[in-house]
This record gives sequence, structure tokens and C-alpha cells, in this order.
Amino acid sequence: MTVAMEKQRRWPGLIEHYREFLPVSDSTPVVTLLEGNTPLIEITGISEAIPKGVRVYVKYEGLNPTGSFKDRGMTMAISKAAEEGAKAVICASTGNTSASAAAYAARAGMRCYVVVEGGAIAMGKLSQALIHGAKMLSVDGNFDTALRLVREVAQRLPVKLVNSVNPYRLEGQKTAAFEVCDQLGEAPDFLAIPVGNAGNISAYWKGFKEYRGVGRIGKLPVMLGFQAAGAAPLVEGRVIPSPKTIATAIKIGDPASRRLALAARDESGGRIEAVSDEEILDAYQKLARMAGVFCEPASAASVAGVVKLAGKGFFQQGQRIVCVLTGHGLKDPDRAIASAEPPVTIPATIEALTEAIKA
Amino acid sequence: MTVAMEKQRRWPGLIEHYREFLPVSDSTPVVTLLEGNTPLIEITGISEAIPKGVRVYVKYEGLNPTGSFKDRGMTMAISKAAEEGAKAVICASTGNTSASAAAYAARAGMRCYVVVEGGAIAMGKLSQALIHGAKMLSVDGNFDTALRLVREVAQRLPVKLVNSVNPYRLEGQKTAAFEVCDQLGEAPDFLAIPVGNAGNISAYWKGFKEYRGVGRIGKLPVMLGFQAAGAAPLVEGRVIPSPKTIATAIKIGDPASRRLALAARDESGGRIEAVSDEEILDAYQKLARMAGVFCEPASAASVAGVVKLAGKGFFQQGQRIVCVLTGHGLKDPDRAIASAEPPVTIPATIEALTEAIKA
Repeated sequence: MTVAMEKQRRWPGLIEHYREFLPVSDSTPVVTLLEGNTPLIEITGISEAIPKGVRVYVKYEGLNPTGSFKDRGMTMAISKAAEEGAKAVICASTGNTSASAAAYAARAGMRCYVVVEGGAIAMGKLSQALIHGAKMLSVDGNFDTALRLVREVAQRLPVKLVNSVNPYRLEGQKTAAFEVCDQLGEAPDFLAIPVGNAGNISAYWKGFKEYRGVGRIGKLPVMLGFQAAGAAPLVEGRVIPSPKTIATAIKIGDPASRRLALAARDESGGRIEAVSDEEILDAYQKLARMAGVFCEPASAASVAGVVKLAGKGFFQQGQRIVCVLTGHGLKDPDRAIASAEPPVTIPATIEALTEAIKA
Repeated sequence: MTVAMEKQRRWPGLIEHYREFLPVSDSTPVVTLLEGNTPLIEITGISEAIPKGVRVYVKYEGLNPTGSFKDRGMTMAISKAAEEGAKAVICASTGNTSASAAAYAARAGMRCYVVVEGGAIAMGKLSQALIHGAKMLSVDGNFDTALRLVREVAQRLPVKLVNSVNPYRLEGQKTAAFEVCDQLGEAPDFLAIPVGNAGNISAYWKGFKEYRGVGRIGKLPVMLGFQAAGAAPLVEGRVIPSPKTIATAIKIGDPASRRLALAARDESGGRIEAVSDEEILDAYQKLARMAGVFCEPASAASVAGVVKLAGKGFFQQGQRIVCVLTGHGLKDPDRAIASAEPPVTIPATIEALTEAIKA
């Protein structure tokens, strides 16, 4: 089909595009920033452990409007909040949720309250919640403390909770699984994904099952979830009171969607494993330097996990693996600068520049 | 057309999608991050000066892979450099070009040298060039000095120049005009765009004319270019030796594509005008707070200019205006944080949270 023959359709946002799979009606006021429709990029050369003939793709969710996959759930949560007449929303957040909630609430004309753990939020994410006009409240305590507080206050005051315990969030997020299948023409053999609060792995699994249910795909993928070693409650089978990892977006010790995530693992014959901060940072740097793809550290847990399993001979020729990159690297510029060689200052002369290049 | 009836096509990147309009052949190795295909988002409530019945859209170019429109030109420039056997590329950059060049060079396996003016680069952009493995060379002097240096060194050494003086850059960038037309089903009445080095306004105009030439659109838009008041060489008709503006991406005193930009203005019956830093920051904040769209300050010059012209009664009911937002707000988190209310620290108790929300 040539360009001249084809009439390009304008992407209408994920609620319109996947309306028949979502709990919306004609009376739902759709609040959208045209989220979704993110690229599926093939990557090569990340690790020699990955056998030739295994194709690895990244679902680059950092190209959603606020720079993370959270927009998929937030367009649903805010649209449904608007349908119910809400004037204000609240969330606890390690950062990406707050950025997304603030942006969609701004677009809907709602007030937005964000409760953050003191001191641990990445700079890009903080800038987003603030510029979109959210009221940010910093509390002494970790994410789990913040989540308990907002759950309680949402029961007392007329503010709508938009954390992933809001069921509409996972409904929106499941559309990423639809897109992966639409882009590949079939489900992948493996879906690798970072696991923090455990909502996203649950949402993908729900999406794959629904697409299979209506015959849009002929098989289901094996789900591979990866937690940071210092914040791996699902791997260790216990709550981690003080989670520790450089991957702030998955630094969660008591995941809200634990039960659903374990079901996704078991129903798909998959795994939830841990990767170290070193393995995460190695994948983070290789993605940027070899594939040209800049993601936030937590996102790289999916690729780090695939590299680790590949080293154990886990994958076979002909298989296709999709790694979810949950957020853009611009969310955490400090980490990137800390992970790279600093600029070199030279005189503004052609001789100095020539010398620097030949060096 | 329902989802079930429609077979979703995977976006192949802009070179494949618009191949017939681009100087590529079967022997061009396409280096792509699946750039392009960015959302066209309608915005309302930005200014009362804009008459009812005038529809304003933003072309959100910040959702390209490296967060700016530069990726459109870079996929072309790097693909053609690869076709010509280049092993290294170089550019001068206020930031976005370096981020894009570094990412695409990484993907192509080329070395990348970036010459930046000392001290003036926004944090997000710096982080990108570094993490993608570019060699960054900081010189004492402004962008124009840096551009002179790289042009000269590219003639002496086997490094390919990928600044916008590279003709393939504008070829790639013109595809944004194609997308705007495809998304609207026709050319808009006005295309508003920030003007720095003046390549992008030239590229859009070229794109519109080519689409008109093959009958894909029936009319041409009026081109409206906006420079920052402290860096407005095209408005003042002279080189600005020391340009000054908070909009770093358009802080350029001696635009490389001056002649083409003035031709775009004159052929379209348009204007190139100046907007103050205050007007730019006001539009920047309103876009984030009212529309939920976070762009970098320079991008907001297009919206600031439209608001300014609207105040003079420039637009009429039934017209459609597309404002180009060239880069994502995450490119410059410091500016966002400086432009907003800081977080408030409260005790981690339900009472304190309740009080903060009721306040």
C-alpha cells in the first residue's frame, strides 16, 4: 500500500481506539492527551547471551505524553472521575503517577493532590507534578506509608483516589498489551516487565487474556516480571519494610497488586525474579549506547532480566521477546549524568577541536 | 470502522512512511527509532483573546524518541551518513540536536562529537548526549561560534556534519507538515512555530508545498514564526551578537536558514514576530496548567505568539491554527521547578493530610 493510496487515520487516544474493551459509555467525558500508540522498537547487540534468531523488542512507553506508561491508566481514571462528578483527585507516588495525575487533572479542570515520600523523587517527575499545578505534600516515610494515608483520606473527603488500586487504572493499562499484539500481529512469546506496585504486569496479563478471548491473538505470552533485588517482595515472599534500589520507580516493599501479579506469573507459566542494581544500570547504559533508547533506570529491569535469563539458556531461536520500558530517561537526568563521562572544556579554536577529535 | 474490523498497521518510522517524498533509495540503510507519528492535541482555554470558533491544536513534537522534533531530521541525516560510509558525526548544539545526534549515532554504531557553548545547556539535554555516549566538547562562546567551528572541522576531518545545514535534516523535518495535514485532513489555516536557527519553519513550508504539489492538500497555510525578543535577528533584520532569552533552544543570533525562513514568511503571506520571555513563560505555564501539556520554554513561543496576535484580532471564526511544540518539558526540569510552587512538608498522619487538603 503506497502512501498516496492510504488515508492516514488520526490516533484518537486509547479510550477511543480500544473503546469496546473498556468500561466507558457515551456519557463518559473522555479526558485524553492522545496517550498510547507508542513505538515497538527492535533492539540488537545488547548482550551476546541472547541467541541469534531470538528477536528482542522494547515497548517504549516513555513516549506517552507525560513520559511514562501511567498515562494509559490515568486517561481512564480521570475520565471516570469526571463522569462521577469529581472535582479533586489524590495519589501517593514515587513520581510517575503524580506526573500523570497532575497532567490529566489539569486537562480536566480538577484539583490534584500528590503525597510523596520525602526526598526520594526524581527531578524530572517532581518538575512535572509542580508545573501541572498539583499540590505536592511531602511526608516522612516510604511509598507504602504514603499509599496508606491517601487511601484513608479518600474515604473521608470528596477526593478521588487515582492510585493503581483504582480499578480503572488497570483497565487503561491493559491496552498496552493490545498494542503489542497489534504491532507484532500476534502475542510475543515472552513479555518482560519491571515489577514495583505490581499493577502493570497484572494489567498486561488481563489485556492478553481479553485479546485471546475475542480471538485477536492465537496464543498467550509467558510473563516475566523483574524486581530490583533490594525491593523484591514478590521474589522473597514477604513485605520489605525498607526497600532499597536506585530504580526509584519500583522501590516498593508492599505491592498493592501482589495477588494479581502472582496469578499472572502462575497462569502464564512465567517467573518473577530479582535483578541487582548493577545489572539494571548495565542494561540502562547498554540500551542508551547500543540501541539509542534512553529509559529510566527502573525500566531497564525488564531488559536486565532478559539478559540474565538468556545467560541461563532460557530462550530459543525463533522466539520473540517484548521488554516493557515503562518511562523515559529524561525523568531522571541526574542518574544519566552520574552514569556517563562529563563534558570536556576546550578553547574555541579549530586547532583545539581538531586535536580533541583526533585524540 | 470498529476495532475488530480494522487491522492496525505498525508505524514504521517516518522514512518508511513517507519514503516517496524523501531522498532515499533501496540502498539507504534506514537508521530509525520510529520517530514521527506525534499527537496533534486540541487545546482550549489558553487565552480569552482567542475567539470562540477558532480551533487551536498543538503538534506535540516532544513525543519523538529523544523528546524533540530534531529526531525527524536526524533519522535522515544519520541514515544518509551511514549510506556514505561515515564512521563519525559532529554537531554544534544548544541541546536538542546533540541529544538526537547522540541517540541516532549510537543506534548506527557511529562516534558522535558535540560542541556546546559553555554553561548554557539545559540539564535534560546534557544528560541525553552523555548517556548515549557522545563526546561532549564545551567551548567558551555562543552557539554561532560553535557552529562555525564544526563546519570548519567537518571539511578537514572525516566526520559528517549533522547540523541543520546538512540538507537531509530539513528533508526529514518536512514530514511534520505532512503529518499535520494527514491528521487534520487538510492544511491548517495557520502554522505557528518557534524560530531559532530557522530550519524548522523552512522545513514545514517545504513540506506543505510538496503536499500541495501532489494534490494531498488543497491549500497552503499562513506561516507564523516567533522569535524570543532578546534573540530576534529575523525580526530586527540584523545579526544579534549576544542573544539573550530563557528559551535556550531558540537562543540564536545568526540563523543558518535565514533566507529560507524569510521566503516561507513571504510566500505564505505570513509573519515572523518577537515575543517576550514573559509572554513565553506565561504560555508555557498555561499549557501545563490548563491543557495538561508540558513543553520546553522555547516551544511555548508558538502559543505565546498566537495569543499575542489573537489580542490584535488576527484570527476569525472557523479557522484552524496548529502551534508546533518543538520539545518536551522534561528537557528543562529546572525551569519547571523554578516556575511552580514548591512541595509542602507535612507530618505522616491522616489529620495533617486532611487539614492540608481542606486548606
